[in-house]
Amino acid sequence: MTIKTIELSLDEIFSLAKTSLIKHGANEENADAVAHTVTNAERDGSISHGLFRIPGYIKALKSKKVDGSAKPTIKEVTPIIFRCDANNGFAPLAHKDSLKLVINAAQKFGMAGVAIQRCHHFAALWPEVEEISNNGLVGLTSVSYTPSVAPAGGTTALFGTNPMAFAWPRPGKNPIVFDMATASMAKGELQIAARDGHRVPLGTGLSPSGELTTDASEIDKGVLLPFGGHKGSVIALMIELLSGPLVGETFSYETKERDNGDGGPAQGGQFILAMSPKILSGKDTSKQTEQFLKKYNDIEGVRIPGSRRHKNRENNGPREVNTSLFNTIIELRDES
Amino acid sequence: MTIKTIELSLDEIFSLAKTSLIKHGANEENADAVAHTVTNAERDGSISHGLFRIPGYIKALKSKKVDGSAKPTIKEVTPIIFRCDANNGFAPLAHKDSLKLVINAAQKFGMAGVAIQRCHHFAALWPEVEEISNNGLVGLTSVSYTPSVAPAGGTTALFGTNPMAFAWPRPGKNPIVFDMATASMAKGELQIAARDGHRVPLGTGLSPSGELTTDASEIDKGVLLPFGGHKGSVIALMIELLSGPLVGETFSYETKERDNGDGGPAQGGQFILAMSPKILSGKDTSKQTEQFLKKYNDIEGVRIPGSRRHKNRENNGPREVNTSLFNTIIELRDES
Repeated sequence: MTIKTIELSLDEIFSLAKTSLIKHGANEENADAVAHTVTNAERDGSISHGLFRIPGYIKALKSKKVDGSAKPTIKEVTPIIFRCDANNGFAPLAHKDSLKLVINAAQKFGMAGVAIQRCHHFAALWPEVEEISNNGLVGLTSVSYTPSVAPAGGTTALFGTNPMAFAWPRPGKNPIVFDMATASMAKGELQIAARDGHRVPLGTGLSPSGELTTDASEIDKGVLLPFGGHKGSVIALMIELLSGPLVGETFSYETKERDNGDGGPAQGGQFILAMSPKILSGKDTSKQTEQFLKKYNDIEGVRIPGSRRHKNRENNGPREVNTSLFNTIIELRDES
Repeated sequence: MTIKTIELSLDEIFSLAKTSLIKHGANEENADAVAHTVTNAERDGSISHGLFRIPGYIKALKSKKVDGSAKPTIKEVTPIIFRCDANNGFAPLAHKDSLKLVINAAQKFGMAGVAIQRCHHFAALWPEVEEISNNGLVGLTSVSYTPSVAPAGGTTALFGTNPMAFAWPRPGKNPIVFDMATASMAKGELQIAARDGHRVPLGTGLSPSGELTTDASEIDKGVLLPFGGHKGSVIALMIELLSGPLVGETFSYETKERDNGDGGPAQGGQFILAMSPKILSGKDTSKQTEQFLKKYNDIEGVRIPGSRRHKNRENNGPREVNTSLFNTIIELRDES
């Protein structure tokens, strides 16, 4: 099966995203922040978090589940702990406001965190941790979502795909960054595989009857499995706890219970942690880390996490966008 | 092959551990702290961190690599960051002193961490995070070691088995606790499998020639692999960074370079983080968490991490100890 694509410049992607969101009720500030996130995903080749998400963002605006004019409010709970109420808005504005505070506090005290509540996150997590690491700090973040992953050993979905992202600063260079679902595969990737008729590895998930299958659309109707068996499963459990009760928000199953099922991003929490290697270690460890990374990179078959995205980023040219997705968004933008 | 065992009470295990350590130069305070750690491992059924470790502890005392009379010194870097110099000592005393400070600071400010340096860690990680969670906090810790694990895609060992442990508090109950190597298998478990002639699952590691094998002794001579492929591999990388440069200590390969190869625990760093769900969330989330855990536990084939150890703990009776190990320790204790 051949997938038809259309070429769009990064500016065209941004403009398409922003005007579509404004058309459906987002204000300038929110539409701008979300469109930046979408465009950066397309730029980096993370297509499952790019324009692919726009129909979902619009569904949430149409159903009024998300307030497209939300303004986050942030409380300084202690000098190093912030609580951000996204006030039913999309995540990018909440990040914009709270990351500055967390970064400043971590640079001063060595460590800081924010609990984001009542937020609709529908993107990758690397933008948050990259920004932290671009300020010389270690970043760690996680979100949960609605249940689509069974704990290892079980066949009932309880976990979200529960991604976590981590970034380590490299002065003058792009940070080391990983951003991964604790599911064997991210839901967006699975859905794109299902849409494009691609098979997925055995072990990715179970069909609705609880059988292992390589059919992505069967798994989309059934359950995903965590990566890495029991060890990956306890990490998925940790992400449920960090993204739910730690930050005063819902577990994935509770998130689903209160969601209106419009297909847009559900409301939930996010945990973000920033730490200063300089303050913790008491020294500059960047030379030591570069020596280690050279050894790491020199191993055949191994590459620094995030480097493929950072490589994509160097190309300012147009991006290939799925034509059917493009047409869907144009229709949504031009709806009367 | 039948493995011969001997029954020892927990008091006998403690006494055997402590007197053996004192015989080889540990002072009362250090021997007591290490013997407690060893006894608690045997009590919980974590035999690879129990008496199995005593010959290694003694090797490090004999070679003078470890100072059996070390007294840790702790600096308060900021109100929430502590740096603990173990002064070439075993880890248990460093934990005893620094955990109190971290727990107090996290209860006050919502989050706190300690960077432990020049420390010889040779035990499980759950004792540290359980203590944190027994004080109402979330605990996270990691150490690295000497290279025995190849990054996914490679065949050269660069990572240690790099364990991480996490604990979540449950008021009035044992916490949720996991403690796992990011290697497919902990080195101690692999060595016990090799000693006892057990096969290990394919994917656990590679033989010295870089081939997949189920022979534990071949993997012991070759390299382990991370759990969970590329996703597990980036978590192992994260543990290298958190346990090395974040806390001002060595990467696994540097740890090996400075080690004297006596077979005892090498010197390295440890990262410990404590966080307050109450301060971050702004509420008491224990009821919500118990409801989630009920759903989790109700899934057939799934159990709360740590529950097997906690179950073992309820039994105060004698433990089965490998007879050949027991004889080795007795010989070491009675050496002239």
